[in-house]
Amino acid sequence: MEASTPTPEVTTAVAAATLPVVAAPSGRHMFSSRWTVRDILGREDGGVGLVDQEGVVAGWIRTVRFGNKGKLAFINLNDGSLITGLQVVCDSNKEGFDQLKATDCSAGASIWIFGKVVKSPAKGQTVEFLASKVALVGGCDPLTYPLAGKGHSVEFLREQAHLRARTNTFFQSKGFLNVHTPLITCSDCEGAGEMFQVTTLLNNVKKPEEVARTPTGEINYAEDFFGKPSYLTVSGQLNGEYYACGLGNIYTFGPTFRAENSNTRRHLAEFWMIEPEMAFYDLVDNMDLAEAYVKHCIQHVLTTYPDDMKFLDSVYKGEGGSLLARLEHVLATPFTRITYTEAIEALLKSGAKFEEKVEWGIDMSSEHERYLTEKIYNTPVIVTDYPKDFKAFYMRLNDDGKTVAAMDVLMPTLGELIGGSQREERLDVLRQRFAEHKLPEEPYKAYLDTRRFGSVPHSGFGLGFERLVLFVSGVENIRDAIPFPRYPKHAQF
Amino acid sequence: MEASTPTPEVTTAVAAATLPVVAAPSGRHMFSSRWTVRDILGREDGGVGLVDQEGVVAGWIRTVRFGNKGKLAFINLNDGSLITGLQVVCDSNKEGFDQLKATDCSAGASIWIFGKVVKSPAKGQTVEFLASKVALVGGCDPLTYPLAGKGHSVEFLREQAHLRARTNTFFQSKGFLNVHTPLITCSDCEGAGEMFQVTTLLNNVKKPEEVARTPTGEINYAEDFFGKPSYLTVSGQLNGEYYACGLGNIYTFGPTFRAENSNTRRHLAEFWMIEPEMAFYDLVDNMDLAEAYVKHCIQHVLTTYPDDMKFLDSVYKGEGGSLLARLEHVLATPFTRITYTEAIEALLKSGAKFEEKVEWGIDMSSEHERYLTEKIYNTPVIVTDYPKDFKAFYMRLNDDGKTVAAMDVLMPTLGELIGGSQREERLDVLRQRFAEHKLPEEPYKAYLDTRRFGSVPHSGFGLGFERLVLFVSGVENIRDAIPFPRYPKHAQF
Repeated sequence: MEASTPTPEVTTAVAAATLPVVAAPSGRHMFSSRWTVRDILGREDGGVGLVDQEGVVAGWIRTVRFGNKGKLAFINLNDGSLITGLQVVCDSNKEGFDQLKATDCSAGASIWIFGKVVKSPAKGQTVEFLASKVALVGGCDPLTYPLAGKGHSVEFLREQAHLRARTNTFFQSKGFLNVHTPLITCSDCEGAGEMFQVTTLLNNVKKPEEVARTPTGEINYAEDFFGKPSYLTVSGQLNGEYYACGLGNIYTFGPTFRAENSNTRRHLAEFWMIEPEMAFYDLVDNMDLAEAYVKHCIQHVLTTYPDDMKFLDSVYKGEGGSLLARLEHVLATPFTRITYTEAIEALLKSGAKFEEKVEWGIDMSSEHERYLTEKIYNTPVIVTDYPKDFKAFYMRLNDDGKTVAAMDVLMPTLGELIGGSQREERLDVLRQRFAEHKLPEEPYKAYLDTRRFGSVPHSGFGLGFERLVLFVSGVENIRDAIPFPRYPKHAQF
Repeated sequence: MEASTPTPEVTTAVAAATLPVVAAPSGRHMFSSRWTVRDILGREDGGVGLVDQEGVVAGWIRTVRFGNKGKLAFINLNDGSLITGLQVVCDSNKEGFDQLKATDCSAGASIWIFGKVVKSPAKGQTVEFLASKVALVGGCDPLTYPLAGKGHSVEFLREQAHLRARTNTFFQSKGFLNVHTPLITCSDCEGAGEMFQVTTLLNNVKKPEEVARTPTGEINYAEDFFGKPSYLTVSGQLNGEYYACGLGNIYTFGPTFRAENSNTRRHLAEFWMIEPEMAFYDLVDNMDLAEAYVKHCIQHVLTTYPDDMKFLDSVYKGEGGSLLARLEHVLATPFTRITYTEAIEALLKSGAKFEEKVEWGIDMSSEHERYLTEKIYNTPVIVTDYPKDFKAFYMRLNDDGKTVAAMDVLMPTLGELIGGSQREERLDVLRQRFAEHKLPEEPYKAYLDTRRFGSVPHSGFGLGFERLVLFVSGVENIRDAIPFPRYPKHAQF
């Protein structure tokens, strides 16, 4: 086989929404129903049992080479599920073959492949994947990609922490990988004004004027521990995205912080969040996962701790009747899925009176959310496609240009339990959203990099752990759903 | 049955070291080999299969009542393992019966019971426990115990967060319960000078003189978010102790922080710690658990991720030869257990030269620790019974008056992986240690309370998660053992 001599042609990355929709192995239509490399090569029979079966694989290119005078492409495909890659073979008469010759279809590019499992003639592998259709999803320019080539030092990889998940240095895991995202961050943009500052500048200082200052009289953060202002994180999402865009499916479970002066029964200054982030997931996949996860948690608690649940049911004095009956109802019922526009219409049609006026464009408050789930639908409700104006910059812009692929999961008696979205994977659209939000690009270079080098459609959500405890236990106040609650003026014990 | 009329006699709590040593069901001699209530009542047969078997139970008294003209005691015993308590019956001719009549042998007191499982004549329970010997471990004065009586409001329990684990409000779990200990704390005593401060006083402030000040010109922490100086925790141990002294066996797994200006390959400013804490565990139990846990983790990784481990072994260039061979050796070898005094003698006897002089009383440095484990014993080494002068106030004072029941687990190529101790459970000794350390008692009222009300012997340890990753993966620098490392002048991504 000869080494590849890529043509200088540049291919524009195919937008996720235009990816071919095919019947995937599981029978579902979504991206997430693809085979992972582990699904094929990780089988006890090495994949032989899948020979001649058709399906979809997707991931990042490790190498692409051409043989038979350029008429055959050999792709080593990695999706984070196994340390070894899957060999993919594509003949030049197959749809999308020309995209494989594009300059930015090289190591690090993301790719989607339809085809079938076949026995491999090569040594060291039982099966390979024969492509009948390929689509370059996110190109990766080999001239600017920091991880082009091989054998990077750990010191160099540390400087590329947002891309480090794409190397073999970390353990791979079956299914979702638990990633430790950092608590201390220097990125203050997302939660400006609601973040706690972390500092050593006040150690051994009694009076304000003793704080280190610059020649011009300002607080001198060069002398702070991290050399610049640092904060407690409000979400592990951005870091989670870096790892999902290399390992496929990941989740984080750690504390997050809000310096909001809220004294409600639903807010804590320090709480735990579960934040899954999935490559090749669209908003429908995201909703499926969220609904399945909530039901799994409830079922797990009911099955594993029946005595505790009986006790909690017996002392429950809250809204909605019996605690156990409410939980069983949630388990038995499909979550209602409506768009924001449909939600507003339903609220208007209900004729109910609310403190805050209902009209398209409002950021629904707790009374609206609870009315939807408790009065109108009597099920948990997933509301999608919110107006872009009050949602975060990273949510994927819908084709209508005015809504984004966001989702909130609303639960009876509680309101919002989960917030999530499909993330904006198109670099040009994301930069436009930065401009609209008046966000500087420089602090987000790493984030934008993930859209430059092998971008993929991906989604995720955040679930507040203590809110889930509140809902499942029937406890009234979130301060009793965590052993040592932190809220304004209270950090005892 | 009549209600109890306790005699006004006051019994001093029996010190842990003097508890009767008996052959427990597992054949081991330690406290931890007791039956939990779940071990008995949680069985599918309701405990019938254990009838006539002898063993030990231990926990906290919910109620104690006397019948048959004061000649029979009925104890409802709870140890955190089940929501229901175990009925214990003790005849007046049994050893220790008189202790049950003491004033402070009431709800909340901790107790140790030897006896056997018998069929129960009472309704609603299959078996009960017939005592042949009882020992009051930690008394609990009903006049001052905040949880005396029944039906506490959640608001009240929140104010007693250190004792809240002793109620039924939280889910009980089989075995170790994962407890979320807080990241933000107002207790700055333990890690003074090495803690990060958490504040909102610098939000929207550019110059030092704009920081809120008191009438006397000092920084005004009354205006800070928590109303007083608050910090990032260096350990969840104290909070973990509160829960162990109510639920039995617990562990925490969360981030901890050190504002040390250390630029070594073994230090991070933000790292994750696993901190188990066990009631009715002495130092031997603690060592057994630590050794079993380290071996379990290594075995788990080798079994679950053989391909990743082969890859890591192939790229390993560090000390000690093959990575896999080193891990297999650790699995196959019992950890050497020596006292600090024996360790000092072994180092002196070796004749080796060290940068720091070896003599009894020194706080061993990394070179000493690694010499012990790599050169002298060629196994992991657990060093116990360190001089009290450089160890923390909460470690249990040994009978010699100059050492404490501490333990450090030292690993080849790494040095210290685990630090732990049996905790000082005797109120009078603990207060004496406070005085020696010149620590004020007031900020530790909650901690001292756990020794006032049903104190129990208990132990625990802390394992730095990234150090374990370092050891198992063979990675050289701890900054590569966590996705987004934080160290001096570095909080990127």
